[in-house]
Amino acid sequence: MTENLDANVHSEIGPAERESLLGQKGCVVWLTGLSGSGKSTLAVGLERALFERGKLAFILDGDKVRQGLCKGLGFSDGDRDENIRRVSEVARLVADSGVICITAFISPFRAARERAGRIIGKDRFLEVHVAADLATCEKRDVKGLYTKARNGEISEFTGITSPYEPPENPALTIDTTSKTVVESIEELIELLRAERKIAV
Amino acid sequence: MTENLDANVHSEIGPAERESLLGQKGCVVWLTGLSGSGKSTLAVGLERALFERGKLAFILDGDKVRQGLCKGLGFSDGDRDENIRRVSEVARLVADSGVICITAFISPFRAARERAGRIIGKDRFLEVHVAADLATCEKRDVKGLYTKARNGEISEFTGITSPYEPPENPALTIDTTSKTVVESIEELIELLRAERKIAV
Repeated sequence: MTENLDANVHSEIGPAERESLLGQKGCVVWLTGLSGSGKSTLAVGLERALFERGKLAFILDGDKVRQGLCKGLGFSDGDRDENIRRVSEVARLVADSGVICITAFISPFRAARERAGRIIGKDRFLEVHVAADLATCEKRDVKGLYTKARNGEISEFTGITSPYEPPENPALTIDTTSKTVVESIEELIELLRAERKIAV
Repeated sequence: MTENLDANVHSEIGPAERESLLGQKGCVVWLTGLSGSGKSTLAVGLERALFERGKLAFILDGDKVRQGLCKGLGFSDGDRDENIRRVSEVARLVADSGVICITAFISPFRAARERAGRIIGKDRFLEVHVAADLATCEKRDVKGLYTKARNGEISEFTGITSPYEPPENPALTIDTTSKTVVESIEELIELLRAERKIAV
């Protein structure tokens, strides 16, 4: 280029400028809980509730990453850990862009979620325990996975043959056995307000 | 949850709804060119020009992914290829969220860029050749990398000891040896208008 390069290198658009454009702060709502606890339902409902308030959100879930970013990773402990690590990194980038990222992964291990918090940044990482007892989740068995796990067709299934480590200090716990979807989503919106990620 | 789950599963927010919220279409401006050709300068300038028009963009570059998402990958042919594959997948997700993603990677190989186009989707993938001849880039040598490559301190350096395969049908070619930064950015904005990703 013909002019002085240094003189033309403006800095990138930072968090404050993104907030002024979008009217929200980029962050990550990290939903964790057993299969069947209601993570996907809440993710989709929260995204829509935010959209209706003029806010921009984006869901990261297994469907979005398993065939793409995490293709080649299997379901061994190591591969699952790498899967959650990459999800943490992408969630961070999505939040950096100014968007409210909603992740919906079982993410059963405390250490992996703590790493997500470090990667994303403590003040932008909102850990939400989507809590339903195992009996309820197993009764729902929306995808038939619990039946398969009980029959030994799936090894290391969280809650059956692999542990779930509940969050010790989540930003929010939602008991989806007693709360309706509408009530649960209102709690999530209230969390985002309380944490000053949105104002409306 | 106490009500019928199926009745409450709304679909996710799709491209049309995102466009109505943001006034833009999510897409990827894929800058490719030699080290020193001006990719980073144009990425930062384009992001700011879009912001000034009320548009939301996000830059993906080596700094953003090498320490995070692609940590553990080195600079072998295979690792470089996996690096660009992951960048393609993340760029796709960023575009899915409604944001204009700007990537700034040398990405010297045609096959890897063609794969990026397939992953992102042809109508959302805008390949831009940031073209400056090797002599000019080497003369600029902003990071001192060409000197190191000539001294054999860096192996397989694009343009010196490893090939650069220019795009055959880029959406745009910008000759940064003759164009100013301001002119180059105006061409990128015009491309986004012509491709109907933005209207202003």
